[in-house]
Amino acid sequence: MARFTVSYRLFAENEADAFERAEAIALEQTVEIPRDIVPKGYIEDTILGHVTTLAEETKGRFLAKISYDSDASGPDLPQLLNVIFGNSSIQKGVKVVGLDLNDLPGFDGAGYGIKGVRQLCATAKGPLIAPVLKPMGSSVQQLADLAYRCARGGAHIVKEDHGLADQPAAPFHERIPRLAEAVAKANAETGHRALYFPALAGPTAELEARAEFARQNGADGFLVMPGLSGFDTIRHLATGSYALPIMAHPSFLGPHVLSEDTGFSHAMMFGTLMRLAGADISVFPNYGGRFGFTAEECAEIAQACQDKSGIGAPIFPSPGGGMSPDRAAEMQTMYGEDAVFLLGGSLLRAGDKIEALVAELCLKVSS
Amino acid sequence: MARFTVSYRLFAENEADAFERAEAIALEQTVEIPRDIVPKGYIEDTILGHVTTLAEETKGRFLAKISYDSDASGPDLPQLLNVIFGNSSIQKGVKVVGLDLNDLPGFDGAGYGIKGVRQLCATAKGPLIAPVLKPMGSSVQQLADLAYRCARGGAHIVKEDHGLADQPAAPFHERIPRLAEAVAKANAETGHRALYFPALAGPTAELEARAEFARQNGADGFLVMPGLSGFDTIRHLATGSYALPIMAHPSFLGPHVLSEDTGFSHAMMFGTLMRLAGADISVFPNYGGRFGFTAEECAEIAQACQDKSGIGAPIFPSPGGGMSPDRAAEMQTMYGEDAVFLLGGSLLRAGDKIEALVAELCLKVSS
Repeated sequence: MARFTVSYRLFAENEADAFERAEAIALEQTVEIPRDIVPKGYIEDTILGHVTTLAEETKGRFLAKISYDSDASGPDLPQLLNVIFGNSSIQKGVKVVGLDLNDLPGFDGAGYGIKGVRQLCATAKGPLIAPVLKPMGSSVQQLADLAYRCARGGAHIVKEDHGLADQPAAPFHERIPRLAEAVAKANAETGHRALYFPALAGPTAELEARAEFARQNGADGFLVMPGLSGFDTIRHLATGSYALPIMAHPSFLGPHVLSEDTGFSHAMMFGTLMRLAGADISVFPNYGGRFGFTAEECAEIAQACQDKSGIGAPIFPSPGGGMSPDRAAEMQTMYGEDAVFLLGGSLLRAGDKIEALVAELCLKVSS
Repeated sequence: MARFTVSYRLFAENEADAFERAEAIALEQTVEIPRDIVPKGYIEDTILGHVTTLAEETKGRFLAKISYDSDASGPDLPQLLNVIFGNSSIQKGVKVVGLDLNDLPGFDGAGYGIKGVRQLCATAKGPLIAPVLKPMGSSVQQLADLAYRCARGGAHIVKEDHGLADQPAAPFHERIPRLAEAVAKANAETGHRALYFPALAGPTAELEARAEFARQNGADGFLVMPGLSGFDTIRHLATGSYALPIMAHPSFLGPHVLSEDTGFSHAMMFGTLMRLAGADISVFPNYGGRFGFTAEECAEIAQACQDKSGIGAPIFPSPGGGMSPDRAAEMQTMYGEDAVFLLGGSLLRAGDKIEALVAELCLKVSS
C-alpha cells in the first residue's frame, strides 16, 4: 500500500464551504456514495480519500490536498486518472494543480527522457529542431521530399503533422516506409542522425499493428494524441515491445486547460500528466501565436517538463509555433537548451530554401 | 468522396471577425498552414475546410458551419474527431454544437441501440432500471451479493461503478465471473433477463484480452469511459468480435462541456459523439443532483440520444442520480420511456431492502 496526493484548486465562498467541497471530492473520486453510508473499516479508512490540508490562496480560492490509497487506483493508469479527476471533472469550481505520487509503484515516467532522446539523435547539447511534415493532402512523394530536405538541413526530429492519419493522399502503410527511407537517405549523406516520428492516430483495433509496422519500417518514435486515444496509449507504446520515444500532442485536450475553474493547470496537463503517462517530449502551443497560452503558462509547462524532481526522467517541452531564425535567441532564453522547437508554417513558406532554413536554425541554436 | 459538416458556435466582436475566425478554424482543422501558402488544386479545393454559412445567433455569438471532405478525415474515428475539433479545442471562443455526417461512409452508430438492448433484456416497453454496484473497496463476495439482490429485484441492467477496475479488493479476473454468475443465478430464479455490464477501464495493452475474458465469462455489455480510453474504444468494442452493447460513462469529459466558450455542447458530447462512436447507452449526471447540469441541458442530451434522425439507431439516455420511487413519475415525464435510470447511493441506503427497492421501482416505471 502506498498513498499519493492530488492538489485541487477550489472556488468557494469561505473556508467551511471549501472544506465541505474537498470532502465531497474525496468521496466522489473513490467510494461515490453519501458519507453516512460509507462502510466502516477498510473502505472508510483506506479507500475513501483523505483531505490532508486546506489553505486559502486568495479570496475565494483554496488549495486542498487529498490523499488517496493505491488500493483505490490499482495498477493501471486509466484508473489512476479516474481517481485523480474522473467524476470531479464534471463539477465546476475544481481544478487539478498538483500530483505527488510519493512512492506509488509502477509509474516510472519516460522511457527515454531528455537524455535518452539526445543519445538517439546524437546531440548532446542545445535545443532540438523539429520540422513538421504537412499539409495534409500532400502525396507520399511530396512528404518524402520535404522530410528529405529537413533531414538534409540537420533537423533533429522530422515529425509528421498530427493530422496525418490514413487518408487517401498518403495512406499510413505506404507513407511510413517512404518517409523513413527519405530521412535515412539524408542521414547517410550528412552523417547526422535525424529521427523520424510518424503520427500514430489509428483506431484502437489497429494501434498495435500500426506501431509494430512503423517500428519495423524505420520509425524512430511516435507522435501520439492522448486527448484522442487516451493517456494510456502513451504508456503502452512507451513500454511495449516497440519502446520508442513518444512525442505527445495536445489535440482535443484544450478544454482541460482553457477554463479557470475546471480541468488541469497547464503545467499539470502538459508537464505532469505527460510524464506520468511516459511521454518523452510534450508539444504545446507557444505563447504569442494563434493560440492563447501566455508566456507564464508556457514557462510553467517547461518547468514541469524539465524539473528534476518530477515523475521519472525530465522530458523535453516542445513549444509549437513562433520559431524562426530571428526569434531563436528569445526562444532559447525562454525555454533553455532542453527544448524541442517545432517548425510548421514558417518552414513551408521557405519554398525551395527549406534545407537552408533548417540549417540556419540548427546553427543558431547550437552556437 | 463525401463531405460532412460541423457547426461551431463562435464568440466574436462582429460578423467580419466571426468570418475570419471561421476561416481560421477551417485552416486549423485541416491543412494547418497559413492561407496564402495552401497549395492550389486538390489541397485547396478538397482538403481545406469550407465555411458554408455564418449567422449571428445573439449579439457577439455566431454559428458557423464548416464543411470537410472525407479525404481529410480518412476512415478512422480518431482522425474524424481530430478534424472536428483537434487543434481548435485549444483556442478559446469556439464550441462545437452540431455535426451532420451527410453520407460519410463507415460511421453507422450503435450496434444495438434502444431496440437491440430491449431485446437483450426482454423488456419491450418502459424505462430500464440500472442499479450500480459499489462502493469500490468492497470484496467480490459483497459485490456479487449486491448484484444478486439487484437482479432478483428485477433490475434490467446491473452495472458496475465506473471506479471498479483492477483493485486488490476485487480484481478484474476474479470479479467478472463471480458477478456474472450471481446475476445468472437470480435470472434463473426469477425468469427475468437482467444484463450484467462490467466496467472496462483497463490499460490499452489489456483491453482486448479483458473484453474477451469478460464476454466469455458472462458479461452482457461493457461500461466504457471514452474520456479516459478514447472514443474509439467504444467503436472497437461495439464492432469487434465481442460486439456487446456499450454503456458510455462521462468520467474525465467534464471540461469538454462545462465552459461556455470551449468544448462541445451537452447534446453533442453526450448524444451525438456517443452515437458516432457506437455507444448504445449514454450516462450523464441528472439535473438537480450534485453535478450542475440543468434540466434543459439534460433534455437536450436525451433528445440527441433518442432522435430518430441522428447517427445510426437511437440510443438510451441514462441520467445518473435522483431516481427513487418518489421521483419515478417526474423522471418519466422528463425522459420518456426510452431511458435507462441509474440507481446509486439511494440503492445502498436501502440496506437489506435492496431487492424490494429495485422491485418497487421497476413496478413503478412499468405501470
